[in-house]
Amino acid sequence: MASRRRKPDFPVGQARRFLEPGPVVLVTSAWKGQRDIMTLGWQTVMEFSPSLVGCLISSVNNSFELIRGSGECVINLPTVELVDAVVKIGNSSGVDIDKFEAFGLTPGQADVVVAPLIEECHAAFECRLHDDALVERYNFFVFEIVKARAAARPVHPKTLHYMGEGAFMVAGDVIQRKALFTKVR
Amino acid sequence: MASRRRKPDFPVGQARRFLEPGPVVLVTSAWKGQRDIMTLGWQTVMEFSPSLVGCLISSVNNSFELIRGSGECVINLPTVELVDAVVKIGNSSGVDIDKFEAFGLTPGQADVVVAPLIEECHAAFECRLHDDALVERYNFFVFEIVKARAAARPVHPKTLHYMGEGAFMVAGDVIQRKALFTKVR
Repeated sequence: MASRRRKPDFPVGQARRFLEPGPVVLVTSAWKGQRDIMTLGWQTVMEFSPSLVGCLISSVNNSFELIRGSGECVINLPTVELVDAVVKIGNSSGVDIDKFEAFGLTPGQADVVVAPLIEECHAAFECRLHDDALVERYNFFVFEIVKARAAARPVHPKTLHYMGEGAFMVAGDVIQRKALFTKVR
Repeated sequence: MASRRRKPDFPVGQARRFLEPGPVVLVTSAWKGQRDIMTLGWQTVMEFSPSLVGCLISSVNNSFELIRGSGECVINLPTVELVDAVVKIGNSSGVDIDKFEAFGLTPGQADVVVAPLIEECHAAFECRLHDDALVERYNFFVFEIVKARAAARPVHPKTLHYMGEGAFMVAGDVIQRKALFTKVR
């Protein structure tokens, strides 16, 4: 099992560095005395400032009501050591179990939101609901990242990228092409 | 430079296998005698059936008008051999140049849409605009993939995943956890 990671703050506008490559994330939420974790693969960065991220959270998930009700969540970034927990969280329901206890994960206190973060994850992005215009039609939530923190090491975490059919791509080598950019973002 | 790739058809509902891991894509469009290519990193799968994908296409791109006007595009999947073209396409404007000619890419005929596909890419997803409700507010387009095709080999293409600051993560190893799923999707 992965160990807890100290995660210093960093500017929210740089959250894209971790989220844009398309990792599976663990979304934590809390509302009316309940807490839950869900596995999410359908997310995209939408804006630098404010720091917006769009997430497809199916209404069949127990987390849907907690997030809708509280208007908050934490997006946690798991790495490859957590792959079994990631799958088990995605294949169980918070109606039946407390997923922190069931899968040996440590809830940590967030700074801005009530939802707990996951200490064993590499990074945590505290979010407030920014726009629910597409929630009814597609279960698509636009969140604003209001606080970002990430472990300093490793610089390139081995994130998980779901491909369907039970298979995950693990983040590979990093190549640098800054010299070809006219304006680097 | 990458060579052209034969891309047999496959079911549109399986497009997630390529798009969900978060690759940078090349979006091609055509309208009123103009054609263009743009580099896009902000996209997410949104639904299996219909096969929906949400894309953030900034209105500062020349492609924005072509896609808005035609209501169509092709999402092309480049692999690591095309990294320099991917960066150059993202750092130039179709107002000034024809990007197919400028970067040595071959336009191919799509089946359902007018926009050309890129022969050198691993996969091509022909798209029709499905919902423009968030275009005004966020430049967020919801497309329906109406035709999907991909090269048979390699089975796990070395896709590019942008991290900001000129750096790309290249798709790494694939791990299988199907045995832990209660219902595999």
